[in-house]
Amino acid sequence: MMNQYALGIDIGGTSIEYGIVNKKGDVIKSKDFPTKKFPTPESLVNEIYNDLININEFSSIIGIGIGAPNGNYFTGHIEYAPNLSWKGIVPLKQLFEAKFGIPTLLTNDANAAAMGEMVFGNAKDLKDFVTITLGTGVGSGVVVNGHLVYGHDGFAGEYGHIRVIPNGRKCGCQRLGCLETYCSSTGVVRSIQELDSENKPFSALSSLENPSAKDVFELAEEGDLFAEEIVEYTAQILGSSLADYACFSSPKAYVLFGGIAQHKGDFAHRVKKHLEENILIVYKNKIDIRISSLHDKNAAVLGTAAHVFWDLLQLKIN
Amino acid sequence: MMNQYALGIDIGGTSIEYGIVNKKGDVIKSKDFPTKKFPTPESLVNEIYNDLININEFSSIIGIGIGAPNGNYFTGHIEYAPNLSWKGIVPLKQLFEAKFGIPTLLTNDANAAAMGEMVFGNAKDLKDFVTITLGTGVGSGVVVNGHLVYGHDGFAGEYGHIRVIPNGRKCGCQRLGCLETYCSSTGVVRSIQELDSENKPFSALSSLENPSAKDVFELAEEGDLFAEEIVEYTAQILGSSLADYACFSSPKAYVLFGGIAQHKGDFAHRVKKHLEENILIVYKNKIDIRISSLHDKNAAVLGTAAHVFWDLLQLKIN
Repeated sequence: MMNQYALGIDIGGTSIEYGIVNKKGDVIKSKDFPTKKFPTPESLVNEIYNDLININEFSSIIGIGIGAPNGNYFTGHIEYAPNLSWKGIVPLKQLFEAKFGIPTLLTNDANAAAMGEMVFGNAKDLKDFVTITLGTGVGSGVVVNGHLVYGHDGFAGEYGHIRVIPNGRKCGCQRLGCLETYCSSTGVVRSIQELDSENKPFSALSSLENPSAKDVFELAEEGDLFAEEIVEYTAQILGSSLADYACFSSPKAYVLFGGIAQHKGDFAHRVKKHLEENILIVYKNKIDIRISSLHDKNAAVLGTAAHVFWDLLQLKIN
Repeated sequence: MMNQYALGIDIGGTSIEYGIVNKKGDVIKSKDFPTKKFPTPESLVNEIYNDLININEFSSIIGIGIGAPNGNYFTGHIEYAPNLSWKGIVPLKQLFEAKFGIPTLLTNDANAAAMGEMVFGNAKDLKDFVTITLGTGVGSGVVVNGHLVYGHDGFAGEYGHIRVIPNGRKCGCQRLGCLETYCSSTGVVRSIQELDSENKPFSALSSLENPSAKDVFELAEEGDLFAEEIVEYTAQILGSSLADYACFSSPKAYVLFGGIAQHKGDFAHRVKKHLEENILIVYKNKIDIRISSLHDKNAAVLGTAAHVFWDLLQLKIN
């Protein structure tokens, strides 16, 4: 059979990347742009179209996959994304389909990450799992019996906005105590300020001007006791929360994605320990904590391309 | 087409009921027994078989549906059910299939309740909803895109064991603060003891010897202030919790089942109010709180029969 390709597009607040991906997960052409280059969604569609119209593979692109914040699979719209300059409701799927004339699938970035994990990554053997993206926020992509869970309105899988600490930290969503306020990279930075410890005055974190989550995880590995306490605190809240969330879909694994998860320290082991300590007995010793194998610059593009292959070709799990 | 029937069987700690159900949801023959009548699962299978072998409809029974505590759809086993005298792993599906020679589906009672709601009850118009059963415990049946969520091991949908109050009430599962410890009928009874109020000394609840959840709800309607406070407290915890759980599957509705939900007072309205006050903005004003329309003595049998029609005939939503 002729080679088939998917065009994967990742839209973020800072940059937009596209890639042409084959069914083995090879990215054969990719490019990225600063998001602010595109005052309108139409200008993005035109730029990518003009980039690709003359390449040999163009006629073998079977579909376009888009991952975007607040992307809705059912409508194909980006709806009121706080971090994009395109305001209101943006019918991005429809714009791409009109220009390219091929099926286009849009979903949010965490759902795309889950598809990438199932088709190309660390969940190839699974039909029931949840991808947790630990970035500026906390996102999730929930897969049940091989299908993404969209919910009645396309907005299912907001595990980052389940409140885990009553009257806890103020969240960008205006509510208090959401998981995201503790376990995102910004949540880790807040922990530097908000946690108290006798080790705090002696920590290198106290002398850094704007310490990042990365600083915390690196210093923890170097033996900084306060940094280690923050890592432990983050893992404890995440593990305990994921234990409760198992009561929803009883997944075989949580696949952690993002800088925090990738850190070569023992974060995933700590999360697993707290998960096991807090979980209902029927789920005990059943659930893996896995780390994404797609954590590199093409992960988002692979995820959106995977979505195309999965939905359009009913590509089966190996 | 010839009439087709399902044999629905509901297995509870106190009683076991079966019913022959047609596709319209009419129960044309039913019977119940005390659970303790059956020292072995085989004796139950034989009793029902002998009851039915000579009725006209026998050859038109297309399948058997069983709802049971700790029932596992994938294995067909009841696994370590704490309230049954049959101990360990009971391969009930296999026993029925061997005797009757027709396909048998086993699941837990809350999942069966959700199927009943979708096929015969108050969720006929829905493909994404969650049934919450408020009984001795709190159970849940989660439907996503028209399918029950079983999870990788068959034990998905344990919303009653998500911890909603940190270090809260001790639960039968040995953990603390599970939803079930507040919003089940036994949880309501615990609230009589554990809540404090200036109205408490004047409440009729203080003079009853063993007040029940039913007493609480009835007295609340009669204007007993402490009883009303308990109803409000129960609704507040349930509504606030269901708000967070929307982040899992973004359901169009929660369908409440059981005595508490059925009470003719304003419990469902109170739950809805607290849900809206606590929910993430993207879900606001989208989710119904509905009350089961199957709350009568045949609800469990209808649910298990619905499961048969749904799975075996791919009966579509009206």
